[in-house]
Amino acid sequence: MAIIECVPNISEGRRPDVVAGIVDAARRVPGVRLLDVSSDASHNRSVITLAGEAAPLKAAVLALFEAALAKIDLTTHTGEHPRLGAVDVVPFVPIDGVTMDQCVALAKDTAQTVGERFGIPVYLYEAASASPLRKNLEDIRRGEFEGLGTKMTSHEWAPDYGPSSPHPTAGATVIGARMPLIAYNINLATDRIDVARKIAAAVRFSSGGFRFVKAMGVTLADRGIVQVSMNLTDYEKTPIHRVFEAVKHEAERYGVNVLESEIVGLVPAAALINAAGSVLQLNDFNRRQVLETRLRESDEEAEK
Amino acid sequence: MAIIECVPNISEGRRPDVVAGIVDAARRVPGVRLLDVSSDASHNRSVITLAGEAAPLKAAVLALFEAALAKIDLTTHTGEHPRLGAVDVVPFVPIDGVTMDQCVALAKDTAQTVGERFGIPVYLYEAASASPLRKNLEDIRRGEFEGLGTKMTSHEWAPDYGPSSPHPTAGATVIGARMPLIAYNINLATDRIDVARKIAAAVRFSSGGFRFVKAMGVTLADRGIVQVSMNLTDYEKTPIHRVFEAVKHEAERYGVNVLESEIVGLVPAAALINAAGSVLQLNDFNRRQVLETRLRESDEEAEK
Repeated sequence: MAIIECVPNISEGRRPDVVAGIVDAARRVPGVRLLDVSSDASHNRSVITLAGEAAPLKAAVLALFEAALAKIDLTTHTGEHPRLGAVDVVPFVPIDGVTMDQCVALAKDTAQTVGERFGIPVYLYEAASASPLRKNLEDIRRGEFEGLGTKMTSHEWAPDYGPSSPHPTAGATVIGARMPLIAYNINLATDRIDVARKIAAAVRFSSGGFRFVKAMGVTLADRGIVQVSMNLTDYEKTPIHRVFEAVKHEAERYGVNVLESEIVGLVPAAALINAAGSVLQLNDFNRRQVLETRLRESDEEAEK
Repeated sequence: MAIIECVPNISEGRRPDVVAGIVDAARRVPGVRLLDVSSDASHNRSVITLAGEAAPLKAAVLALFEAALAKIDLTTHTGEHPRLGAVDVVPFVPIDGVTMDQCVALAKDTAQTVGERFGIPVYLYEAASASPLRKNLEDIRRGEFEGLGTKMTSHEWAPDYGPSSPHPTAGATVIGARMPLIAYNINLATDRIDVARKIAAAVRFSSGGFRFVKAMGVTLADRGIVQVSMNLTDYEKTPIHRVFEAVKHEAERYGVNVLESEIVGLVPAAALINAAGSVLQLNDFNRRQVLETRLRESDEEAEK
């Protein structure tokens, strides 16, 4: 069984009944599991985490679009978070037994149906993107819903699927495929924010560090310590233990110790199992040796 | 959902059709998954790995006993591996969402029914054992099937359940609960067997090392290197990364490097996730942060 995660972000975070109705439309699809819903009133946005195989996830996303279009009107929407559409962004994320290419195919297939069925322009992003200009969500979303009509008159911003002008109330949507994002923080046994900032700069991509690391230094005032706060955007290519070792090593330069690290939210088991494998110098280890993986495979055989 | 592993060892490894029939009796129980069957002709023994929740596993073990009793006769059985009965040993192993105490209760409940229904004396072992004398399988099995009649005349060897003399063709059986066993080897970049043996002696319980480690030094002649070959019998109390670090540290004394390590067979994800957590100094990490755990929980909710 393939496990794909799908994390639709919708532009509604203030009316709980509306959010619940939209979530229900998606979770009712057989074969789809709802893992999490988190709403933010100041952002006026909700993040919905679903998991399942390709076909049910596509059906769930379509049901979610239908429900969201009936209830969300971007012409009157306000909120702190940038957004382009009623269903703002839909990433598909490979978790287990599925390749990134398969998630890209699912993203394109879903995007095409969304464009055709709902008359919404769709941009593909991240691994599904065909153009470097449209790889990053921030670039696609620049100008937001309010600037979309003007932006779309430029040839550069013709959508990948759907009509060539915005949907009147739902704007446009961004669909794609990406690796799971791991929110990973390392706490330092010091209150020196300059050290946290220098280490963040050393390990993050934007200033010459690892390709799949975003990082900043922050102060944890209540604890009197500082933190290197990171997003790891591809744990296969920039593994968690390599980042940990690099931060530890950089900290040593400043005579500072690592106090602890923390994972915020969910992490794929593979990210931790890979870390253990590296540290233990495990040779020829494969995921079928993990008892739970074997168990899941036997479940699938039983279902055949 | 609780995941319990159950690993019946039966005294038949030469007649594949007989083994298949006995395995089928167990796997046909709904809710039981067959993970592995491995037969050894010289041992004349097969090891069957099942997984599931308590009730289906008990039913599967009873079905397995019934099938094994019909086909295996210890009075004519030969083989290199020591054995006491047709179904020789049945350990229940906690994997996920279940405590050792619950596995002990399952072992006792199953043992009682086996004793009553099939007229087979049953000894409890490992975590289920009530007496230090009968904790180790080797002690219970000493004298084997052939010596069982005499052994059982001693008050010390009155069984925990079932009749006080051997079953005529099926002998006695040993049922209990234990932690998962991890077969873990560390290869050294040397051909000096004395170094492997000294390190094995340093880390194993029997000569003063870690409580839950069995170890020996062996030569891998085809590769021209040596290996510290280990069984880790409780990865929660003697974790895998601690053993790795100890072996690495001991090897340094002899100017020897660790080449690699390897896990043979299956390992619970928790053993590797714990290792990663330790190495990354993860703070406040809990298993519900592992995406696959959350996914399994949502499956269970869906089944309610």
